[in-house]
Order: sequence, then C-alpha cells, then structure tokens
Amino acid sequence: MKTSLFRCLVAEFLGTAFLVAAVVGSGVMGERLANGNVAVALLANTIATGAALVAIILAFGPISGAHLNPAVTLADAIERGLSWTHASQYAVVQILGGVTGAVAAHLMFGLPPIFLSHHVRSGPAQFLSEFIATFGLVSVIWGCSRARAEFVPFAVGAYITAAYWFTASTSFANPAVTIARSLSGTFAGIRPADAPLFILAQVLGAVASTFLFRWLVPSLQLTAKEVLVAHESDPPR
Amino acid sequence: MKTSLFRCLVAEFLGTAFLVAAVVGSGVMGERLANGNVAVALLANTIATGAALVAIILAFGPISGAHLNPAVTLADAIERGLSWTHASQYAVVQILGGVTGAVAAHLMFGLPPIFLSHHVRSGPAQFLSEFIATFGLVSVIWGCSRARAEFVPFAVGAYITAAYWFTASTSFANPAVTIARSLSGTFAGIRPADAPLFILAQVLGAVASTFLFRWLVPSLQLTAKEVLVAHESDPPR
Amino acid sequence: MKTSLFRCLVAEFLGTAFLVAAVVGSGVMGERLANGNVAVALLANTIATGAALVAIILAFGPISGAHLNPAVTLADAIERGLSWTHASQYAVVQILGGVTGAVAAHLMFGLPPIFLSHHVRSGPAQFLSEFIATFGLVSVIWGCSRARAEFVPFAVGAYITAAYWFTASTSFANPAVTIARSLSGTFAGIRPADAPLFILAQVLGAVASTFLFRWLVPSLQLTAKEVLVAHESDPPR
Amino acid sequence: MKTSLFRCLVAEFLGTAFLVAAVVGSGVMGERLANGNVAVALLANTIATGAALVAIILAFGPISGAHLNPAVTLADAIERGLSWTHASQYAVVQILGGVTGAVAAHLMFGLPPIFLSHHVRSGPAQFLSEFIATFGLVSVIWGCSRARAEFVPFAVGAYITAAYWFTASTSFANPAVTIARSLSGTFAGIRPADAPLFILAQVLGAVASTFLFRWLVPSLQLTAKEVLVAHESDPPR
Repeated sequence: MKTSLFRCLVAEFLGTAFLVAAVVGSGVMGERLANGNVAVALLANTIATGAALVAIILAFGPISGAHLNPAVTLADAIERGLSWTHASQYAVVQILGGVTGAVAAHLMFGLPPIFLSHHVRSGPAQFLSEFIATFGLVSVIWGCSRARAEFVPFAVGAYITAAYWFTASTSFANPAVTIARSLSGTFAGIRPADAPLFILAQVLGAVASTFLFRWLVPSLQLTAKEVLVAHESDPPR
Repeated sequence: MKTSLFRCLVAEFLGTAFLVAAVVGSGVMGERLANGNVAVALLANTIATGAALVAIILAFGPISGAHLNPAVTLADAIERGLSWTHASQYAVVQILGGVTGAVAAHLMFGLPPIFLSHHVRSGPAQFLSEFIATFGLVSVIWGCSRARAEFVPFAVGAYITAAYWFTASTSFANPAVTIARSLSGTFAGIRPADAPLFILAQVLGAVASTFLFRWLVPSLQLTAKEVLVAHESDPPR
Repeated sequence: MKTSLFRCLVAEFLGTAFLVAAVVGSGVMGERLANGNVAVALLANTIATGAALVAIILAFGPISGAHLNPAVTLADAIERGLSWTHASQYAVVQILGGVTGAVAAHLMFGLPPIFLSHHVRSGPAQFLSEFIATFGLVSVIWGCSRARAEFVPFAVGAYITAAYWFTASTSFANPAVTIARSLSGTFAGIRPADAPLFILAQVLGAVASTFLFRWLVPSLQLTAKEVLVAHESDPPR
Repeated sequence: MKTSLFRCLVAEFLGTAFLVAAVVGSGVMGERLANGNVAVALLANTIATGAALVAIILAFGPISGAHLNPAVTLADAIERGLSWTHASQYAVVQILGGVTGAVAAHLMFGLPPIFLSHHVRSGPAQFLSEFIATFGLVSVIWGCSRARAEFVPFAVGAYITAAYWFTASTSFANPAVTIARSLSGTFAGIRPADAPLFILAQVLGAVASTFLFRWLVPSLQLTAKEVLVAHESDPPR
C-alpha cells in the first residue's frame, strides 16, 4: 500500500474517532448536567458536534478529504472522486475509527468500553428523517464544494447543527457513526436492531442527492476528487 | 424554459423547503424537549435556523443565488438583478418549496401533513417588528453583497439568529416562510388570518431598505445580479 | 457637507440603531421567556448581540467602517484614522442612533418609547469590568484589523459574545450604547446615574489599548483609516 | 533582548491573560445566574471561551503567533518553529499572563485576587481526558495550520468549544491555564494537588500528536514557524 493512501486512511480513522467521541462524550456530559431538561442536554450535544465537525474537517480535510462518513464516500465514488477500492478502504477505517471514538468517550467518562444501546429509534418517521438528513448533508457538500470550497467545513458543521433539531432522529446521517452509536448505551445511542434501517435510509438519501446534483451542477465530477476538501495526497483513481 | 433557469427554480424550491423544514422541525423538537421553558425552545429554534441558513445559502447560492424569499427577490428585481418574469417564477417556487418543507417537517415528527396554526400574531407591535426585521435583512444583503460577497451566507445566518430575539415577532421576514408557517399548527406557526399583514410589512421593509441603499451605495445595481451569491447560471435579464 | 461623509453618518446612525435594538430587544425577549433563569435569558441576549454585530459590521462596514461606538472612534482618531471633526460627527450620530434603536426595540415589544432604567451597576468591580471590556475590544480591533482585516466583523462579534460573560458588567464597552441603555428600563438597562463612570472607564480602556498597540504594532497608523473595515468613501483627513 | 521578541512576549502575556479571564470570569457568571443548572452554566462557560479564543487568536496571532499555551509552544519547538530559548520565555510569560488573568477575573467579580480551588479533578478518566484533549488540540493546529492557515483561529475556538463537552475534564489542555485555574476557587477551578497530573497528560498528548503529524504531514516543519498564525516579527531561530 502506498504511503499516501495509508496516510489518508489514518486521517479518516482519526477524524471519525474524534467525531464519534464528540457525539457520544458530549451526550453523556449534557445528560449528566442538565437536571433532566433534555433540550439543554441536546443543545450541548449539538453545539459540541457542530463545532467538532468544523475543527476536524479543517484539520484532517487537507490529508484525506475528511469524508468521515461511508455515505459521503459512496456519493463521492459514484461521481468518481475516488476509486471503489479506495472507497471501501475508507469505509472500513471510518467504521473502525467510529467504534474507537465511542470506546474513547466511554473510558473518559468512566463507562465500560462498549455496551449496547437500548434507545429505540424506529418507524417511518425516523426512516424519513434519516433519508432527509443525509440527502441534505450530501446536497450541502456537493453544492458548496464546487463554488465555495474553502467554506465546506463550516457548511457541514452548520448543517449538522441544524439537522440535530429539525429531524426527528437528530440526524445521524452517517453509517459509521450509526454503528458506533449502537455500541453506546448512552444519550446518543441507538438500539442495534434499529441501525440497519437507519443505514439504508442514509444510503438512499446520499444516492438520491448525488443523482439530483449530477443534473443540477453538470460540472460536478470535475471537483469530486476534492471532496470535502482539496487534499494533496489524493489516491490515484 | 431554458435548462439553466429550470435549475435555478429547482434550487430555490429545495433551498426554501430545507429552510422551512429547519424552522418548523426545530420548533417542534425544541418545544417537545424544553419542559416548558420557552426561552430554551426558542434558543434551539434560533440556532437551528441560523445554522441552516448558512449551510443552505452556501449550498444553493452558487446555483440560483439562494434568495429563498420573495421579499428578497422583489428587492433584487427592483434593482434589476433579475427580470420581473423570473422574479415571479422565483416567488412561486419559493412558496411551493416552503409548503413542501413544512409538510416534510410534519411527517418527520409524525404530525399531519398540513394543519392550520392558531398562533395569534397581530397588532401594531408585530407589524412594526416584521417591517424592521425585513428592512434589516435586506439591508444586510445589500450592504454585504457588494463589498464582502463571500460572507453573505454568514451575514444572513447571523442576522436571522439575532432577529429571532430582538423583534417581537421572531422575525419571519419572508412571505414564503410566512405562508408555509400558517399551515403549521406548531411552535413556529402563525394564524392564517394574521399572515397578510405580516407579508405587507415584509414587502414594505424590503422596498424601504432597497431605496435607502440605492442612495447609500450608488453602485448597487452593478452587483444586484449576484445577490445573494454569485451564481453561474444567471437567467438572462 | 459632502455626500460621502453624509452617507457615512447615516450608516453609523443605522448601524448603531440596529446594535442597540438587538441588545435591548433580545434582553426583553430573553427575560420574558426564561421563566426566571437569568443565565438562559443572558445566553439569548449574548447570542443575539454577538450575531447582530457580525451582520451589522459586514453590512455597514464597507460604507462607514462600522465603528458604531464613540470609544472606537476616539481610538481611531488618536491614530489619525479620521479627523477630530469627523470623529465628533460620528459620535453624535452614534448616540442618536443608539437612542433610536432603544426606542424601536421598546415599540416592537409594546413598551413606552423611553423609560429610565433603575438597574444599579456601580462600584469598583463594575468600573474595572468596563475598563477591561473596552481595553479588550479596542485591542481586538487594532490587533485584527492590520493583519486579518477581513475577519474583523467576526472577531468583534466573538469578543463581545465572550465579554458578556467574563466581565461583571456584561461589557457595555460603548458610550453610545451606554447612554441608550440608560433610557431603557429593561433587562439590558443601566441607571442613568451610573452611566458617567461607565463611560469614563470605557474611554480610559480605549485610550490605554491604543497607546499599548502603538508600541506593539508600529505600523498601526498605516491601517487606521481602514478601521473597522476598509470603506471606500473615507472622509478625507 | 530584541524589541521584536519583547513584543511577542507581551502579546503572549496579554493573550493568555484574556483567555484565562474569559474561562474563569464566565464560569463565575454562569454559575451565579444558572439557578443550579450546571449544564446551562457550562454552556455559557463554553460559548464564552470558544468565542474568546477566536477573538484573541485573531488579535494577538499576527504579533506572536498566539500560542497562549506551553503545550503548543513545546510542540512548536519540537518542530523547530521557535528556539528552545524562546520557547521557555514564551512558557514563562504564558504562566504569568494566566495568573494575571485569573486575578483580573476575580477582581471584576468582587472576589479575592487569588484563592485556591478545592475542585477535585483526579483519576485515570480525567488523565485520559486531558491526554485526548491536548492530543486533539495540537492535531487541529498542525492539521489546519499547513493548508488552511487563515482559519486556525476558528478551528481552535471550535475545537475547544466541542472539547469542553466531550471530555470528562472539560478540556483544560493547557498547562498555563491549569496553573492559573488552580489559584481560582471558582466554577472553573482545579485543586492544586491535581494540577501536576493534568499537566503531564497535556504534555504527553502534545508530544504524541506532534510525532504522529510529523509522519502524517511530512512538510510540517516548513510551516512550524507560522504557528498558530503567521506573525511578522518571528524571533530568529
């Protein structure tokens, strides 16, 4: 394996680990301190996650593009931003990174490394929420990365900040994060049995957005290689 | 109809749909979780709306300009940023998009697709609030788009974040959003009977700001075509 | 009077009016909705004020520089960024704008146009707070405007967001705003008898910061004309 | 001592003083106003600290780089961004500035200048938290400063905003701030006996991140001199 690709994979691993640590950790802290006011706990969870995304994408984007999300990597592979081989490698390390991030958050808060969630998140409203959440996320990435590339980290952070509140599922919008959160019996958790439909909705949302934007922005493929952020060591296609 | 114009209309439709989904959805979520503390619910509603605007304008701005608001489109048409024909097409799809966004939010939260609001918002203080809110919004757009065009998405998001709190009406400042919110019997709703005066105040505010800025910034018309954001596929004037 | 100067004065008037309307209006809204949790009310007040500053400086900065603050104008005049004649004109319209903004906020919330505050804010800790608050504000402006001029609106908004909480006075840091808030018997008010010492502390803080930065950044005067933001119609010095 | 170096040291002193004043002062204000809801107090503390960092780094960065943190200075010295002599001078003034900032915050809130904290923060979960917090902070600085240098102030502010919530220690991530907070018997304090292990964890995190990024970004040393922000008066190496 080339060094440059290996660096990309390490960056995706670390970035996704920090993202999940931020989601899970801030959920634990928010719930512990909020005296039962769930809105205050979710506000803390939201602000921490949105801010973390800005910092993480700015930091790891120039190395690997900072996908941090198999649904985004899938969308980018459809537009030939990276090869299917590299896309599958990205997805694997994103999932491993996400689980590692959950473990790290648990250990920082004195919890068991992994414990399954019992948080029920099912039904058509949740499915629709995840479809819309991921459709929107991928739309923001495609729409912004072409003409306002330098602001993608802020656009993604702002989008997720909003989507936490305007979707009924609090916008997981990320299969790697969904898997990691199924292993976390905390505020941000999801029952493992509910994860597969979440992931299906996310994949459908990402694909639908990608085909729409292929028509909406005909030059999309020209910049797909620079998603989310232009990175020097692009793996060859 | 030219493809480039059709793309603009689809972008305005989608952008306004996401904006209203963010306003209505985050209002529902905020109210459900805030244990009756309306300030906390409104804070969540505010942060979600402001952040959504940043993301949506960054994403759809390069396609259609991301007006997302018939009052803004009216102001831009007065300054010849787009033709009156295109302006009216923009307004139609903004309204349709807004209603679609409200329906999407309702379905995500397990509510009926459409149900009228009984939220009374009337009286001279509310009228003045909407006038000032829209006057300010259009002023921010005119003032910022000429000399700091790249920051318009942040300026608009920041302005609405502030205006939610400093106006008594929580700053609808948008006729398409007002119509959509009249069809939403939720936290963010408005009684349909109160909508017409809101819209009148918004139009007056937008017009007043435009005539003031025509004097304040004589070069205004030169950049009107690039409001809110420079977009490649500008419909011919 | 030259048209270009007149435009500057109108921009300073409007900008300061919006700033005070944001401070006073969001204070009223926050206090009404927060069920007695003053921290939540102040959080709303803070977020609205910080966001308003970003939007207002981006909008009016390219016209007049967006001082919006006699202490800033004084500092800029010391460094010859504008003449003393123009500085005094700036200060007058800032004060008039501030009062107009308070009146507008009161009318939007169904309150009397003007009513004196009984909010006691006195003593050495408050004096020290205002000195430090304004020292910091002017330091941020001098430090950022030379080398990162495009980010001054964000730096000022962020600074005031922080200073609301880390000073005991909630950082008025602005004589025009202080006068306007003395005419507002609301959450954000200040007893008129306490205003003079606030203003004295603000002036001392602005002057101290300016002399420090004259040494810290020897090229300060070269960019003083472009404070806060480069504006095309600079009044001749 | 050269004037340019002396300016750097004054900037580091002032910047760290403002940072600690923001942390300690907003903690006091938050706790006083939050009616016992610790999540609301911490939210105020978080928002104030994150916003202060953005403003302070934008203001003092162009003078000294705005390290404001001996762990960051250590990391930068390892990569030869500044000499070990200058690094130790930076660390001394950062500590002095931090203590001064705590004193200033105490005086603004009518507290004794210095009073030891009894806030227990110990155990392996806290140690791990500080290691991860500082590892992440230094990673964000290294990752962002090379390819997105203009956004480093925002990346650092966003990162700390998130890390307040996702680590169990609320992310001190800074030895100078840790020492200053041990002298503050307030919301943000730390028992002096717990400070040494915090500082050890911070140093280990900074070093680990630096060696990782040396491999991840081979060109790291080329830009180390411009950490956090390019500053004109770089002390000669």
